[in-house]
Amino acid sequence: MTIGEANREALRRIQAGTATLVGLRPAREVVPGLGERTVLHAGPPVAWERMCGPMRGAVIGASLFEGWAQTPGEAIGLAESGALSFDPCHHHRAVGPMAGIVTPSMAVYLVRNEPFSAEAYATINMGQGKVLRMGAHDASVLERLQWMNRELAPLLDDALRRAGGVDVASLIARALTMGDEAHNRNTAATSLLIRALAPKLATTRQGDVERALAFMGASDSFFLNVAMAACKATLDPAHGLSGSTLVTAMARNGTEFGIRVSGTGDRWFTAPAPKVQGLYFPGYGPDDANPDLGDSAITETAGLGAFALAAAPAIVQFVGGTPRLAVETTERMYEITLGEHETFRIPALDFRGTPLGIDVRKVVETSIVPVIDTGIAHRQAGVGQIGAGLAEAPVSCFVEALEAFVAGLPARA
Amino acid sequence: MTIGEANREALRRIQAGTATLVGLRPAREVVPGLGERTVLHAGPPVAWERMCGPMRGAVIGASLFEGWAQTPGEAIGLAESGALSFDPCHHHRAVGPMAGIVTPSMAVYLVRNEPFSAEAYATINMGQGKVLRMGAHDASVLERLQWMNRELAPLLDDALRRAGGVDVASLIARALTMGDEAHNRNTAATSLLIRALAPKLATTRQGDVERALAFMGASDSFFLNVAMAACKATLDPAHGLSGSTLVTAMARNGTEFGIRVSGTGDRWFTAPAPKVQGLYFPGYGPDDANPDLGDSAITETAGLGAFALAAAPAIVQFVGGTPRLAVETTERMYEITLGEHETFRIPALDFRGTPLGIDVRKVVETSIVPVIDTGIAHRQAGVGQIGAGLAEAPVSCFVEALEAFVAGLPARA
Repeated sequence: MTIGEANREALRRIQAGTATLVGLRPAREVVPGLGERTVLHAGPPVAWERMCGPMRGAVIGASLFEGWAQTPGEAIGLAESGALSFDPCHHHRAVGPMAGIVTPSMAVYLVRNEPFSAEAYATINMGQGKVLRMGAHDASVLERLQWMNRELAPLLDDALRRAGGVDVASLIARALTMGDEAHNRNTAATSLLIRALAPKLATTRQGDVERALAFMGASDSFFLNVAMAACKATLDPAHGLSGSTLVTAMARNGTEFGIRVSGTGDRWFTAPAPKVQGLYFPGYGPDDANPDLGDSAITETAGLGAFALAAAPAIVQFVGGTPRLAVETTERMYEITLGEHETFRIPALDFRGTPLGIDVRKVVETSIVPVIDTGIAHRQAGVGQIGAGLAEAPVSCFVEALEAFVAGLPARA
Repeated sequence: MTIGEANREALRRIQAGTATLVGLRPAREVVPGLGERTVLHAGPPVAWERMCGPMRGAVIGASLFEGWAQTPGEAIGLAESGALSFDPCHHHRAVGPMAGIVTPSMAVYLVRNEPFSAEAYATINMGQGKVLRMGAHDASVLERLQWMNRELAPLLDDALRRAGGVDVASLIARALTMGDEAHNRNTAATSLLIRALAPKLATTRQGDVERALAFMGASDSFFLNVAMAACKATLDPAHGLSGSTLVTAMARNGTEFGIRVSGTGDRWFTAPAPKVQGLYFPGYGPDDANPDLGDSAITETAGLGAFALAAAPAIVQFVGGTPRLAVETTERMYEITLGEHETFRIPALDFRGTPLGIDVRKVVETSIVPVIDTGIAHRQAGVGQIGAGLAEAPVSCFVEALEAFVAGLPARA
């Protein structure tokens, strides 16, 4: 296969994929290779010693939640002792926003891509304020974690099963006509998901359904994790195609930014995590910010997020800039992508499909790097989100990936 | 007061208004002057003899629903006999989409404008397909009418009261950042309303809550009637200001189009109802279409609908045209309005407020007429909606209103 053919096949697989949210299960039951003291995290591999503050905070919170430790000090001791196995979510068909911590007792969404028998996982979004993904781990966080995983998850699972699942790809396509870009803005998608499930949730016989529906509706980010699992489920079948230069994952662990490319297998190409340009909440500024963090760049990799920014003009109130900048960002991303999404379309661009399929060659040729919508976490564990903005992927990852790709090509006859 | 002062005061009142959905009640309990055999209808006054097909169909359906007649033939006989009192919704603080029929047993939303102690009413939207507002009145329509008014309304009322009401103005403002224009497109607002009420609906102790939530979510037009009552509640305090040339109502009965102007009291200025330019459902065309119909132009009068079309680029799939046309339509409406809405803003226009407060003088001076988003009803009773599009208000209403306004001015000293 030529590079062109391999890339066409990679793109075809993404376009032919589906994403159906079918239920939730404790991670230990479904996530492959998740040993009992395994901690999955966002981004490329990173050891405890090099983890950023928010990710360490989330590891502490997860250890308390799992009962592996009784105090933050004990949790730190456990991590330092080497008793925990750290591994990227991406190595286990999972994705997580910000710190992206997944441990065995956490419930995960199951998103299925039927035509390719693929499945991907993500935990439930905790909402705003003090949340595990930003490194918070106080009593309120632990209480919410317990409730989400022991009460909310079975209730949602029951509703999803009785609803026959939810077509996430269609829901995202609709949300793009409603001002979402499915990464930093999930206002419409969260509302549509509640609208779809409310009839079934209202007739559940288990748990505190008023709290469940109020919790789902309290934060516009509720849908984000579902969107991420959907993107992962549709991108994975495009991975591992010999000869393809299509990027199948972009992810950050808060220390490093990494990408994986279809034709270079499971290797990560990394660079220091970039700073985020954006708007800060009152009282915070760039000196407080952790570098870019999270698996949520899977949305940009799948043609959403900043790649669909033109669909979400209102987002500039949250990330900075102007509606014109939003349009220009999407337009620029067409320069480095292999195609246009057939399902995700932008009304304001005359229903043009979003830019889909980042080509490492185009990034290197044009020096145009992928733009990523993102939240900004405080660099210290426990503080939480302090802003939101845009980050630029480091070009060196793409250069390195292209070099490795070329080095791996068979010698010409 | 000069005309300028009167118009500033009219505009100030609209901007200072609020719109809170507080509950539902049978129309007979709350709508002023609604006698037991009174039938309220959309638009300016019209007698049975001159009513269009869809409005006649809806009158028949309402008579069957109320038990005034047992067969359509009996209902027609009743209407012809003069036993029913017909009166515009607008004469009773009410508004209704399309035929706009309100009879005493129908539940109406109560939307309050607290600063002005104003209140407005609208029935529950029936959804799509065979619906009373399009003139359908078969057994399925009557069953749904019974259920909506006897079961759904108390259930919604209970949820609204326990939720402490819903701020409709804020909800519409948010929906404008989500691709709605609050007339032909209420996808976001319907979803946001369900999201707001679902926690309370799920814990109701009355009725079939699964059917209620499924019904609310089944049609994107569910919110329309709420939006209309909110517009009516905020416009009414601007009516009746001596010296003001601001339009406080535009409404169509399917035979005539009519406007009311703040400074000319309760008189309607009418012209034949215009044709609608739009997209037809398969199998239908312009020859099947009834002329423009319904009180829903209250949304344009309040700075929404076609006046906010730039907020809703995806609507062109429903009404025809291009996203560029949507922007141009909103931009043209600034030429005939007195101000810009302080709450309703359009992200794609750099968050500019929507054009607000149609000035009859500006319409006459520029010959630019208000554009109205609208559905298209079949001209025969019972068929239902056959399309959607844009209509232009007849300029002669505005010319006539301005003449009457000038004639009513005190002679200069």
